[in-house]
Amino acid sequence: MAERDASSSISVAVLGASGYTGGELVRLLIGHPSVDLTYLGVRDAAKRSLDEIHPHLAGRVSASLGELSIDAAVDAAEVVFLALPNGHAKDLAPDLVEKGRRVIDISGDFRLPADRYPEWYGFEHPSPAWLEKAVYGLPEWFADQIRDAELVANPGCYTTTAILGLAPLLKQGLIEGDVIQVDGKSGLSGAGREASEATSYVVSSDSVRPYRFPGHQHTPEFEHVLNAVTGASPRVIFVPHLVPSVRGVLCTSYARAAGDGVTTESVTDALLEAYAGAPFVRVLPAGGMADTKRAVGSNVIELHAAADPRTGTVIVVGALDNLVKGAAGQAVQNFNLMHGLEETTGLSSVGIYP
Amino acid sequence: MAERDASSSISVAVLGASGYTGGELVRLLIGHPSVDLTYLGVRDAAKRSLDEIHPHLAGRVSASLGELSIDAAVDAAEVVFLALPNGHAKDLAPDLVEKGRRVIDISGDFRLPADRYPEWYGFEHPSPAWLEKAVYGLPEWFADQIRDAELVANPGCYTTTAILGLAPLLKQGLIEGDVIQVDGKSGLSGAGREASEATSYVVSSDSVRPYRFPGHQHTPEFEHVLNAVTGASPRVIFVPHLVPSVRGVLCTSYARAAGDGVTTESVTDALLEAYAGAPFVRVLPAGGMADTKRAVGSNVIELHAAADPRTGTVIVVGALDNLVKGAAGQAVQNFNLMHGLEETTGLSSVGIYP
Amino acid sequence: MAERDASSSISVAVLGASGYTGGELVRLLIGHPSVDLTYLGVRDAAKRSLDEIHPHLAGRVSASLGELSIDAAVDAAEVVFLALPNGHAKDLAPDLVEKGRRVIDISGDFRLPADRYPEWYGFEHPSPAWLEKAVYGLPEWFADQIRDAELVANPGCYTTTAILGLAPLLKQGLIEGDVIQVDGKSGLSGAGREASEATSYVVSSDSVRPYRFPGHQHTPEFEHVLNAVTGASPRVIFVPHLVPSVRGVLCTSYARAAGDGVTTESVTDALLEAYAGAPFVRVLPAGGMADTKRAVGSNVIELHAAADPRTGTVIVVGALDNLVKGAAGQAVQNFNLMHGLEETTGLSSVGIYP
Amino acid sequence: MAERDASSSISVAVLGASGYTGGELVRLLIGHPSVDLTYLGVRDAAKRSLDEIHPHLAGRVSASLGELSIDAAVDAAEVVFLALPNGHAKDLAPDLVEKGRRVIDISGDFRLPADRYPEWYGFEHPSPAWLEKAVYGLPEWFADQIRDAELVANPGCYTTTAILGLAPLLKQGLIEGDVIQVDGKSGLSGAGREASEATSYVVSSDSVRPYRFPGHQHTPEFEHVLNAVTGASPRVIFVPHLVPSVRGVLCTSYARAAGDGVTTESVTDALLEAYAGAPFVRVLPAGGMADTKRAVGSNVIELHAAADPRTGTVIVVGALDNLVKGAAGQAVQNFNLMHGLEETTGLSSVGIYP
Repeated sequence: MAERDASSSISVAVLGASGYTGGELVRLLIGHPSVDLTYLGVRDAAKRSLDEIHPHLAGRVSASLGELSIDAAVDAAEVVFLALPNGHAKDLAPDLVEKGRRVIDISGDFRLPADRYPEWYGFEHPSPAWLEKAVYGLPEWFADQIRDAELVANPGCYTTTAILGLAPLLKQGLIEGDVIQVDGKSGLSGAGREASEATSYVVSSDSVRPYRFPGHQHTPEFEHVLNAVTGASPRVIFVPHLVPSVRGVLCTSYARAAGDGVTTESVTDALLEAYAGAPFVRVLPAGGMADTKRAVGSNVIELHAAADPRTGTVIVVGALDNLVKGAAGQAVQNFNLMHGLEETTGLSSVGIYP
Repeated sequence: MAERDASSSISVAVLGASGYTGGELVRLLIGHPSVDLTYLGVRDAAKRSLDEIHPHLAGRVSASLGELSIDAAVDAAEVVFLALPNGHAKDLAPDLVEKGRRVIDISGDFRLPADRYPEWYGFEHPSPAWLEKAVYGLPEWFADQIRDAELVANPGCYTTTAILGLAPLLKQGLIEGDVIQVDGKSGLSGAGREASEATSYVVSSDSVRPYRFPGHQHTPEFEHVLNAVTGASPRVIFVPHLVPSVRGVLCTSYARAAGDGVTTESVTDALLEAYAGAPFVRVLPAGGMADTKRAVGSNVIELHAAADPRTGTVIVVGALDNLVKGAAGQAVQNFNLMHGLEETTGLSSVGIYP
Repeated sequence: MAERDASSSISVAVLGASGYTGGELVRLLIGHPSVDLTYLGVRDAAKRSLDEIHPHLAGRVSASLGELSIDAAVDAAEVVFLALPNGHAKDLAPDLVEKGRRVIDISGDFRLPADRYPEWYGFEHPSPAWLEKAVYGLPEWFADQIRDAELVANPGCYTTTAILGLAPLLKQGLIEGDVIQVDGKSGLSGAGREASEATSYVVSSDSVRPYRFPGHQHTPEFEHVLNAVTGASPRVIFVPHLVPSVRGVLCTSYARAAGDGVTTESVTDALLEAYAGAPFVRVLPAGGMADTKRAVGSNVIELHAAADPRTGTVIVVGALDNLVKGAAGQAVQNFNLMHGLEETTGLSSVGIYP
Repeated sequence: MAERDASSSISVAVLGASGYTGGELVRLLIGHPSVDLTYLGVRDAAKRSLDEIHPHLAGRVSASLGELSIDAAVDAAEVVFLALPNGHAKDLAPDLVEKGRRVIDISGDFRLPADRYPEWYGFEHPSPAWLEKAVYGLPEWFADQIRDAELVANPGCYTTTAILGLAPLLKQGLIEGDVIQVDGKSGLSGAGREASEATSYVVSSDSVRPYRFPGHQHTPEFEHVLNAVTGASPRVIFVPHLVPSVRGVLCTSYARAAGDGVTTESVTDALLEAYAGAPFVRVLPAGGMADTKRAVGSNVIELHAAADPRTGTVIVVGALDNLVKGAAGQAVQNFNLMHGLEETTGLSSVGIYP
């Protein structure tokens, strides 16, 4: 696809604009120099204004607010972002693409082969043909396919965090492809906007707790994507945890070193080499320690790795903002690739620290 | 040792009363019905009052405040708790015991064989003979030895959390004894009272980060104690993390299941059986999820385990309050055993929730 | 009432045991040496166990769990605590008292004269006669009446915090009785257990915000009680705020100094004198600064005051744990007075710090 | 001053780039389209890299790092921002201006008349002549003077928050100009980057506490600026508090209503009218409640006001991000005015929420 003139605008709609990922997407898109944000679809649009839904955006958004309507999105935009809970995009995306719109879906509905959906998502996928055409939107590994994609399946936050660290090591044969343990820690924004006692301030403060394991739906995504990238077929045991923070996912992955020659230096070099040209990947030197805090509000992911010869283990750590690189920011990065823009367009702001 | 009359008091001193563990020890000891707390030793005692050191205890403590003096402790007390940073007790404890005092040391100075100190603690241990006489103060596994001990080495917070979950499974042959991954998450109180930017509110909020790995000094403690309890010789890779909370340690451990017959039910049963009579161990049923929050302020540890046949992995989770069951509370539990008291004496209060 | 034998037990029921105040009440009552906790009434008792309602109390409570039934409470207990939302106790308490039970109501239903309820609580009070017999349960000022009360109206958390500081100064004529500004800051546990987005972790973190002013229902309580204690008739403007913490209320009150002779020393002395014998009031010396943190988990209130001659203002600050001295702990303190027990019985534990 | 061509760059230096305000200034300036950030001065520049000082900016800053040197700043830049602790700029700014550089000082060194410094800042001001030439950098009220200023005194965070709300009401005669109570609540980033136990995570969590009152150095700034804007001469009693959050200042101000005709509607209208053209002031409708959370990361201030006829009080609330509108963002806003740029240049990003 030809390099696009950055001064012309691309019309964009967001269906599912009322959640936290939706709000983050709107925040990024209204600051994007090549985007004309025209339509925001939410449930019960008649009952509430955008100022009520996202008070921090009050007065800054000129897009129309309406229902979760395919027709409205098709009328309003060339590109449609879907920021809905799992299980909704599978019924909307094919229709949109068939009507000539390019779609970026932030849910899990188009990330896996059809046969994994019943077990991990609890439904038979209605559009296996579209599953095959969908491109997994991890720009550091699938940029070429993303550029031409009609339907991009934006990766999960945990999977982005762990896969970016594991993939180069697995590909270069520095770690074994048998069983990999991924221990995930997420802030509460990952639990979505729905109110519950479990995610209340008083119950979540000072609370560290695992959840939904061993059956978390990101599990097959780790395995499928690592296989797609590296050819290896690791099985992943994934244990996610909630920790008292707002944004941020950190994954600590444990893999068997492929032989005695694997050192902290060699795994660090592998990361540095893999991401030499990747604008959002910050590989830390040996001894560096990733910190979710340094990623908050930006599209950065911090990565580092270490080898422990005593136990024959390689440890890989990744940290990002789950709403940005783990969701909305990565979606915009995919959008940029799809339209021949610089990958960093609209994503150049550094994080908020402290 | 004969059952002691609960109405008579045992005189007690604390050396190192100014840190967070020291403060927690004082809090527990002033509420203990069989303790007469007589002496508190701190650095620079002349420069500050106890009310300044621990304002929340203002007006509640009648013990004398003085320097970190062996003689003062010997004069004042039958039992001496040492709540000092690593590297101090090794020079104080032998002297105290030789002068006839029973000692409970909360540091790491007496937990390992002598040959591990140079590598993991950075010093040659000056009293290898006392290392051999010291009893590891994990009451659920070493109660008999603790009852008669002159010198108790109170366990680390991470090690208590992970070992209590792993030991029964390893002992019963439900998990393999090769490599075990322990992923630890700790609140900031575990970093001690010394001020630093890294532990400031603004830097620690919304920050999830690993630290000091793979060389954390609890690593050989896991291995040594698991071996002492079970006879197996696992190697442990341990990655600790700081998460934004005040109190609380949660450890998620990953081990290889010993065969296809290992199920969530069988590992849960093993925990239930091991701790049927343990007053502070709360084994959660299958599907339960440990939460540090429910342990805050109490001596409880929550444990649960699950098997994942797909990857052949057993996951074991433990959660406790690092200042109570992970330090001061366990020390009091050891004290109770040493004096023929009910294990729960002075430790019966439930946690603060929410 | 004669001094009661501390070894005999008083049977106690709690109606409304499932909220945060209810849970705190249960925590305190199961540790109270003169209480036999027999009955806990909650809505939908059949659908859930106490372990589900209050997991941190799992295995520690032997009371029966049942519905919010007057008859069940009367059958089970001599004393009934009501820990229900505003508007429920007004219909339950008279019945209980008429059946010979002594009642401590933690809601606002019996704290005001009948004519204030329509405006501030939105209902006509059904039992004005009982309003007159109810005793306001602020032990530091109404101990004599509490001892003989059949029905105690336990004070609000904000009102306890501000009134204990203001009353001595107003009574001694150190501040004017015209308009007093009370600026309240509360942790989120004050908002109750009902889930809402506004009290979720992600929305409440880093959020400082006022709410429900100028019409908060504690406003007339300040005025009515300050009048009852001092004879003065100040009008109070009260602005409450939510701040990101779990427990803790701090009130900063501003009053006009009654003349030039009012100094920080004289207002501090007035506080010291007023609370010389009060076991839970910690008056800080001039220059001291109250801190909610030091009160968490205990029945302590910290108080201090300062005069600013430049503006002719006296500032009074109070800080407490809203669930303890601001609710359940004060209720137990009232219970102790009602039964001739030491005021500190079952309330002697110091707070959890840090 | 003529409208500047937005495409040409202005060279800028920051002295004091290592603190939190300095970091925020760098974050904003590297995203500013008309700024060429050339020099960053810090103490001990030789000992550390910018990546160590501000890891979240790693790889994004091309400015030179050097000492706190006037000569270096003069060589490198047309405009110098001073982001140093109070007491440093008073000796640096005159020199810089005399060498032809325009200066924006973020400390308190040039905000007051000379006679206030000994009492409130503890020093005799060395440059009273420059105090008179310095312009108070509150753009909503002093834009004309700021445009031509050589030396701008950027306002304090608390003073910005409260004055923007009070000034229109005082100017329009809706509130009395006698005594105004300002109750401030600040996140911990306002306490600066210096490590101390008082600002550690564990001590600050769940802690709400007043500090440094009645002598806080922002007190005379309220009075002086309100007088400069309105002609009235109110005395202000100011009590600041620390609350557990990272960013955010909220001030609740209490003033006497000027007569019975003052209503919530009239005070709200006065705010709306005063700030009709102000791009960063978000006046909330009657009943709205300001929230620091909605300002985090942006240059927005939220304002609202209410009248309480019952007590004759007007309450005014303001909320902002202390590092942005309360410091670095406002400094950039002043910079824009000084250079004929749109006031919002480089400041248009909305906040991070949640």
